[in-house]
Amino acid sequence: MSVLVVGSVAFDALETPFGKVDRTLGGAATYFAVAASYFVPVRLVGVVGDDFTATDGAIFKGRRIDTQGLERVPGKTFFWAGRYSEDMNQRITLATELNVFADFNPRLPPAYRDSKFIFLANIHPSLQESVVKQVNGRPKVVALDTMNYWIERTPKELRKTLKLVDILVINDAEARQLSGKHNLLQAAQVIFRMGPKTLVIKRGEVGAVLMRGKEVFTVPGFPLHDVRDPTGAGDCFAGGFMGALARAGRVTDSNLRAAMVYGSVMGSFAVERFGLDRLRKLRAREVHVRARSFYKLTRFRL
Amino acid sequence: MSVLVVGSVAFDALETPFGKVDRTLGGAATYFAVAASYFVPVRLVGVVGDDFTATDGAIFKGRRIDTQGLERVPGKTFFWAGRYSEDMNQRITLATELNVFADFNPRLPPAYRDSKFIFLANIHPSLQESVVKQVNGRPKVVALDTMNYWIERTPKELRKTLKLVDILVINDAEARQLSGKHNLLQAAQVIFRMGPKTLVIKRGEVGAVLMRGKEVFTVPGFPLHDVRDPTGAGDCFAGGFMGALARAGRVTDSNLRAAMVYGSVMGSFAVERFGLDRLRKLRAREVHVRARSFYKLTRFRL
Repeated sequence: MSVLVVGSVAFDALETPFGKVDRTLGGAATYFAVAASYFVPVRLVGVVGDDFTATDGAIFKGRRIDTQGLERVPGKTFFWAGRYSEDMNQRITLATELNVFADFNPRLPPAYRDSKFIFLANIHPSLQESVVKQVNGRPKVVALDTMNYWIERTPKELRKTLKLVDILVINDAEARQLSGKHNLLQAAQVIFRMGPKTLVIKRGEVGAVLMRGKEVFTVPGFPLHDVRDPTGAGDCFAGGFMGALARAGRVTDSNLRAAMVYGSVMGSFAVERFGLDRLRKLRAREVHVRARSFYKLTRFRL
Repeated sequence: MSVLVVGSVAFDALETPFGKVDRTLGGAATYFAVAASYFVPVRLVGVVGDDFTATDGAIFKGRRIDTQGLERVPGKTFFWAGRYSEDMNQRITLATELNVFADFNPRLPPAYRDSKFIFLANIHPSLQESVVKQVNGRPKVVALDTMNYWIERTPKELRKTLKLVDILVINDAEARQLSGKHNLLQAAQVIFRMGPKTLVIKRGEVGAVLMRGKEVFTVPGFPLHDVRDPTGAGDCFAGGFMGALARAGRVTDSNLRAAMVYGSVMGSFAVERFGLDRLRKLRAREVHVRARSFYKLTRFRL
């Protein structure tokens, strides 16, 4: 079972207390695709400019990532520059140049239209909706990420799209903003009524929470000695989560729990090095070993 | 096996978005003692003024809490007033009147001197040290809580006391401040060299982390629909943790993990109502049921 992802492919300029890079491949769909490809084949939909070289695209090669949906148009690729605070819990955006991403209108190649596991990364909710509409038949899982920008500026469009969504994957601040509730259990109840019956709340280094009906499952963040660059952690979490769920093939409580662990695993690898550096060299064996270490991290007997 | 606790007994004036009380019994040692008493007998050392009535002391009755170490002196009991922010993640202190607590010099009644499990709640590190010195023989566990005030103002005294401590129980900001490391694994390594070989980091609603050698164990916060008043949550965590550990009788990896779960359980009850209101009515059966629900909250299979 493959996963379809739609979202940004970008060049990032990153600055953290541990270093600086001027131009590295990034974007939510990129991180997601690389992370998910450890579990299942990935179908990528995005747009890049003519400054996107074969070297840039090398990350997708040999990884079960289908890039026929990665459109290439005249102009420059989406560019984002950001700087993280000393403790890396805050970041400021130094530049956002949408470039070719400004006119992004995702189109699914015919070969993608039978997709059953779909991840709508953080883009305009109407574009997210259009992607779902292009899929033939009933997908097994439509999952969506969004952000404060869309929650504030396109609430109507977002509400419309959320009706089509099974799993909402956002961070705690976004869950609170979208629901108007500070308490996360109360926030989940409000969000369930908007459409998604499953809510995944990403909490950065602390881990993530899954809520579904009355069920709650928590997964910790993997304890790391060195965190170099938080960029892409949330997207890698989503990639690991959706990849593992698609590999399992069915949405069950047990599969969702395992997917949460794999999400946390992939998010933890992402932050160990700059940009995609850790993921470039990551081996399937390492994913397996780290996932199993979550048993030790959480197991107890009363 | 009983637990000895030394710390503040106070009257609190509390204000949260859910209500207000002008005078309710509080203080770290009070919360700790009530929480720990669900697991083992507790020996309390503290001081109150002559405004402390039999009604105030009723909370200790019928609970296996020995109060012969609760000194009663002329003057007023320690008073603290605080107000929590809308999201309850921050609080401002409106008043701190030390009163009789200013001259607190903990003295262990002879019957307490054989204590094996000792919790030094947040007071001047030299007073904490003097308590350990009054104990006969080698205790099994000396655990200590402290705060930014002592880390900043009495670093030498604190370092001296930490040499006698087995388990340090603090929050993440305090761990970072004490160690000078933002990364919590790195912070733990620094703290281990100060004396404590086990570090418990309390992270509020998110849960807690146990670090010991290379072992890490995480426990989530229990998801609650209603959080009314965070006061005393950390002290109840410590009470549940130490109580469960003392009941187990031996410090093993497995017992520490279970103790972490009971800590989280007791912290979660504390915040459901104002002050000690929830704990006043809490039954052993409820503790048992909530602890077992942590299996469901954390269990997965890859």
